[in-house]
Amino acid sequence: MPSEVLQQAKEEFTNWNGHGCSILEMPFTGKDFKEILHQAKMRLRSLLNIPTHYQILLMHGGASAQFSLAPLNLLGNQTCADYIETGHWSCRAIAEGLRYCRVNIAASSRENGFIRIPLQDELQLNAKAAYCHYTSNETANGNQFHSMPESGNVPLVVDMTSDFLTRPIDVARYGMIYASSQKNIGSAGFTVVIIRDDLLDRASHITPHVLHYKAQSEANSLINTPVTFAIYLAEMIFRWIEAQGGLQAMARNALARSSQLYRAIDESNGFYSCHVLPDSRSHVNVCYTLKNSTLTPLFIKRAAEHGLVNLGGHSALGGVRASLYNAMPEKGVTTLIDFMHQFSQEYQR
Amino acid sequence: MPSEVLQQAKEEFTNWNGHGCSILEMPFTGKDFKEILHQAKMRLRSLLNIPTHYQILLMHGGASAQFSLAPLNLLGNQTCADYIETGHWSCRAIAEGLRYCRVNIAASSRENGFIRIPLQDELQLNAKAAYCHYTSNETANGNQFHSMPESGNVPLVVDMTSDFLTRPIDVARYGMIYASSQKNIGSAGFTVVIIRDDLLDRASHITPHVLHYKAQSEANSLINTPVTFAIYLAEMIFRWIEAQGGLQAMARNALARSSQLYRAIDESNGFYSCHVLPDSRSHVNVCYTLKNSTLTPLFIKRAAEHGLVNLGGHSALGGVRASLYNAMPEKGVTTLIDFMHQFSQEYQR
Repeated sequence: MPSEVLQQAKEEFTNWNGHGCSILEMPFTGKDFKEILHQAKMRLRSLLNIPTHYQILLMHGGASAQFSLAPLNLLGNQTCADYIETGHWSCRAIAEGLRYCRVNIAASSRENGFIRIPLQDELQLNAKAAYCHYTSNETANGNQFHSMPESGNVPLVVDMTSDFLTRPIDVARYGMIYASSQKNIGSAGFTVVIIRDDLLDRASHITPHVLHYKAQSEANSLINTPVTFAIYLAEMIFRWIEAQGGLQAMARNALARSSQLYRAIDESNGFYSCHVLPDSRSHVNVCYTLKNSTLTPLFIKRAAEHGLVNLGGHSALGGVRASLYNAMPEKGVTTLIDFMHQFSQEYQR
Repeated sequence: MPSEVLQQAKEEFTNWNGHGCSILEMPFTGKDFKEILHQAKMRLRSLLNIPTHYQILLMHGGASAQFSLAPLNLLGNQTCADYIETGHWSCRAIAEGLRYCRVNIAASSRENGFIRIPLQDELQLNAKAAYCHYTSNETANGNQFHSMPESGNVPLVVDMTSDFLTRPIDVARYGMIYASSQKNIGSAGFTVVIIRDDLLDRASHITPHVLHYKAQSEANSLINTPVTFAIYLAEMIFRWIEAQGGLQAMARNALARSSQLYRAIDESNGFYSCHVLPDSRSHVNVCYTLKNSTLTPLFIKRAAEHGLVNLGGHSALGGVRASLYNAMPEKGVTTLIDFMHQFSQEYQR
């Protein structure tokens, strides 16, 4: 998280806005919290230039809950959905999708070990699909869509959790976008769902009321108590992004940080390597391995001693992963590159 | 929230345990957070004396999500459940239950305006019910069960959100207990589910994976990112309760605070009145009205000027509601009583 935001939250932690109580103690039904929620939604609408015929919902359960809630809310009378399979998280979405409908795998890079994003002309879409789901950035596999897929008249649904707010997007080309809050929106606590009005009314009758898109839309996402503290932090994060120059600036920074790091990997004479093909590499999660994989645990331990923490790859995949979310300062990347160089000098003999 | 807990959370907000980063930034998969989670569950188990054949789950979605998740997870092959109707929140649970099964209203105090808790011999239980659901304390109506209902072999399921940890309970007499965190466990962010092992395997196949009791039990409630900050605060709250003398002390304090306030209401010569019958009055949410109801908004406004905030009754019911959760100091109650006396002196002419 941006240090300015943390610092402000700390300062007003026990006395929000002179009220003499913590933001944690304020009722979600009161006018103060409602104003924070209103500001947060307004700033998000402005940052992403969200058209008026799209609603912003703040949902419970994390993005993984949306793996079930998207089919529960969107299938309507249809029995099939398209999914593009590009790594760990799209596989989890597919596993949940299978419980509610026939899943058509429109494209998969599984046989290449998810090192590339399928091209548009590889997609085998089903015109009768209720929606077409993809994962814009795979945190565990280190790949990212750099242009969005086209799904014609079938609404495009995207899990944007890990690259939400890292670049401008054209919301009007999506049916629904979802992103849980713990990556680029501050802290764990809610999932943003941005949904086109006409998709709000397709829910199955067994959808739990608090997880029903239309019900939450009609209740301003306040059917029951939301995680007020996470929404308060999100509003500050949105202001911070605005002050940094908005999503254009976030995209420039993400490109600059990740390019530097990929260059260091590619120029390490094979000591480090990134298997993801250049066109498909994530600007957010740089995943790479050491030629001598037995050195990986030592690399991660020594990095931590240099203040470079949480560099372990996803538990299912191993290796190294540098997560360069919006709040990562450029200094963090140069420190990592310096350390990588030093480590490779020491151990390449 | 207890001021000591808030103060400690503030002090370590940007630098948890000397790690140089905020607790908000720590990965939920790391050993530091896992230790916090372990401590939180261990302390809760100890406070409530939870038998080993009961699991503690920390679920997404708030208690209102459990209105749907209890039937989705517990119906098994059965098609009917018993519900005891005692006010606003049990009605909401029933409305959701009706979407998944036949609901047998085992007892209701609706025709008395929910001013009393049904007696044991009024319950018309169904031996084939999958469970019997009740709400131990109705925040909006101000009533509370002071002895738990008996449901024989049918598992008893209780929404204990608003009086959880305010008194000792005998967990072994329940099938399942649930309580969302924002009342007596700190801040909004998770719902505790305490469930007997044999009830874990009855879920419908359409239950979303992250909301599936058995799946969360097997994953130590870490299928996906939990609201780490709320769990961190909860662990501190549990320690605070221990330090105050545990649940016996919480119960003594709740009784002392609420008795004082009910006495002031009953001795106001009808200026204030509480409609709930004495045996059914809540020790947590004291709900009352002013004889001249047109004075209610002024009462609430003037109280706020005395630092007595959030005294408005539930939006559906109006009136005045004093919520005396664990963290409320006795001073808060005496200040309220003094103000009520002063207000009645001024306006009873």
